[in-house]
Amino acid sequence: MSSNDHFTVRIGVLGCGTVGSSFISILRKEAEQISNRTGISLEIIGVAVKNRKLARPVEIDSEILTSDAAALVADPMVDVIVETIGGLNPARQLVLDALRNGKPVITANKELVATYGKELFDAAAEGNVDLMFEAAVAGAVPLIRVLNESLIGERITRVMGIVNGTTNFILTKMTEDGANYSDVLAEAQALGFAEADPTADVDGHDAGAKAAIIAMMAFGVNAAVSDVYREGISNISADDIAAAKQMGHVIKLLAVVERDGEKIGIRVHPAMIPNTHPLASVRDSFNAVFVEGEAVDEVMLYGRGAGGKPTASAMLGDLIATARNLQQGSVSSVGRLSSLPISSIEEMISAYYLQLDVNDAPGVLALVAGIFGENGVSIRSMDQEGKESTAHLVFITHKAREADMQKTIKELRKLEEVRDIGALIRVVGD
Amino acid sequence: MSSNDHFTVRIGVLGCGTVGSSFISILRKEAEQISNRTGISLEIIGVAVKNRKLARPVEIDSEILTSDAAALVADPMVDVIVETIGGLNPARQLVLDALRNGKPVITANKELVATYGKELFDAAAEGNVDLMFEAAVAGAVPLIRVLNESLIGERITRVMGIVNGTTNFILTKMTEDGANYSDVLAEAQALGFAEADPTADVDGHDAGAKAAIIAMMAFGVNAAVSDVYREGISNISADDIAAAKQMGHVIKLLAVVERDGEKIGIRVHPAMIPNTHPLASVRDSFNAVFVEGEAVDEVMLYGRGAGGKPTASAMLGDLIATARNLQQGSVSSVGRLSSLPISSIEEMISAYYLQLDVNDAPGVLALVAGIFGENGVSIRSMDQEGKESTAHLVFITHKAREADMQKTIKELRKLEEVRDIGALIRVVGD
Repeated sequence: MSSNDHFTVRIGVLGCGTVGSSFISILRKEAEQISNRTGISLEIIGVAVKNRKLARPVEIDSEILTSDAAALVADPMVDVIVETIGGLNPARQLVLDALRNGKPVITANKELVATYGKELFDAAAEGNVDLMFEAAVAGAVPLIRVLNESLIGERITRVMGIVNGTTNFILTKMTEDGANYSDVLAEAQALGFAEADPTADVDGHDAGAKAAIIAMMAFGVNAAVSDVYREGISNISADDIAAAKQMGHVIKLLAVVERDGEKIGIRVHPAMIPNTHPLASVRDSFNAVFVEGEAVDEVMLYGRGAGGKPTASAMLGDLIATARNLQQGSVSSVGRLSSLPISSIEEMISAYYLQLDVNDAPGVLALVAGIFGENGVSIRSMDQEGKESTAHLVFITHKAREADMQKTIKELRKLEEVRDIGALIRVVGD
Repeated sequence: MSSNDHFTVRIGVLGCGTVGSSFISILRKEAEQISNRTGISLEIIGVAVKNRKLARPVEIDSEILTSDAAALVADPMVDVIVETIGGLNPARQLVLDALRNGKPVITANKELVATYGKELFDAAAEGNVDLMFEAAVAGAVPLIRVLNESLIGERITRVMGIVNGTTNFILTKMTEDGANYSDVLAEAQALGFAEADPTADVDGHDAGAKAAIIAMMAFGVNAAVSDVYREGISNISADDIAAAKQMGHVIKLLAVVERDGEKIGIRVHPAMIPNTHPLASVRDSFNAVFVEGEAVDEVMLYGRGAGGKPTASAMLGDLIATARNLQQGSVSSVGRLSSLPISSIEEMISAYYLQLDVNDAPGVLALVAGIFGENGVSIRSMDQEGKESTAHLVFITHKAREADMQKTIKELRKLEEVRDIGALIRVVGD
């Protein structure tokens, strides 16, 4: 590309909420710098919104404002579609229409990519155009580009990500202030860090969608949201956090995707990780993704997982890459997705943390320990603390099969000496 | 690109030392997976070495081994050159010849890119081919791709990097074991983490070359090694480390590139950063680069900065990107470099840490504090500790101009009450 070339790309933006309006305002602000640096002019020629009368954080010329998203997608004057509507419908049909008609799409829509990934990638291949979704996983953290370009030749063994800001904020507050889950959740809701209905975050749905996308990009497998094993953080107690701290660990909600022989495991669950692990120092609502590979060893990417401006920044990077491709007649490929089987949670090997309240009577500890042993789960450490007639036991196991650990818990539940069983937390990163 | 396409890229490798042999062995191991995923076959058809008879860590068919690097570069059968020789000569001429003859080049040669960046980029533009150098800065940390693609539209304000593994190893050991600089250096040399002549690392030359490259990629300026202000770590004492620890900080050797009004500051020096800063937890020989931008907020990239396999992994990512470009007839551009002026160290604004030994006599503290004040440097905190007839003073200043701070030190040196002045360390990241 000679530096005298000049190339204009005309953009249609779908939606103008937090992300859409941030995108428009950043693009306006940086257009000149981008043009100087890359020789490419980026011009927004249409913005589709539900209600044209609504007040917006950015001023938009009424001439380019439309309520007909489908017409904007079909407009032959539009070179690229930037989708910021979110949700499955009507986003799915609009994106498919754009791609099939040879129009590249930039999207931040994790739900869409995690649910219809294969269909969308096929439509992009059919239209021979780019589908870019850097902002769909961990916001401004440049994970998708790094997995699909820098690490495309790497034999990745495991990816572990803190990909949900709300739960990381809650767990950070619980760790640093010793507070209870429900109190911190209420605080997070008051501060606007958590939704009124926090289910999508705290039950791991949001992280699950991102785990499916990570599986596609890191391992080239055709994964979907339904392949993801999922546990949330609502049963993590202040006791668990304190026990982790005592062990020199922190509890994080992790999306884990790993090679398990000829299968791929995809799951979201709380995990204890050592303080010395790079993921342990990811605080508040920040996101980070830790990638392990045979040659690269360890790579971690860290940044803002959400928010209008960081999300828009990621979409702008995608847009410029797409524009460079349009200028040269080239396309960025996500590569071929194979159908490597997904392993079930029962097959997983992990160390575990488990706490129990039991009757403080002679022989109870031996009884409990015996059940671990009978099920093939070897105990690495045990801590006992008395509270009146109850003993509080904290176990850390050596690595064991999840199925064996689940069977252990099932049998422990049957014992009348066992009064309460706390959260089962995997211990990773040692 | 339809998934039925198949495309072969023939590679000439220059050099077969640690990096070259790792590259060859990883490429051989992963070629099939890469072909399945991308539809691209990567084939090494020539390896140029100084001495064909030497034993090597990888077996290389004698038919593809040559001692004539120039002939390999000129060979019309070779599609891409992978340069692993290092150093300025003959690497410079070989790379220029390849680029000018329309042959893309992958290199890990930081010295070459930092010294002749503009000339190389011009040659790549002239030949309309890729010049890729991800491995030249922070090894397997995917910084170059992220700066040149993900963040190309971002208004970056500052980049701070731990880009030299040897000095980070030394500073980590000093911090965690309370050891002296010279003892840890000797240990690092015994372990092979530091060279027999450690100057390039400990005096900041290596980090300086990387800072120049970061300036080019993050700010699009035509920077070179000679534009970098540079201080090493050899005058950092165990006392400095202990003082930092007491303040909740750690000392790191940082490459800092920042926007300073209409200028760009490029420098390498030890700095104190708070424990809560993401760079503080980068331990041992790991590298990390922390990028601040107006929209993206904060992004950090972390990984192995050196070593045969991580470096080869980064080069393999570059090679696949280049192969995809060759397949499509496209080129990745580094964009246009402007000649934004470089600011001098005297213009820098920073907070500072300084320790002094002074006579323990009435009025000395007032005298010393007065000199700070007269030069416009405001003191944030002062700690005094007596050792017999000497008082040990530790100052932290508010933000001040470097020129004013240097003038303060110059005047302090003139006082006969001042017995010794320790290292001046910038305090950043608060």
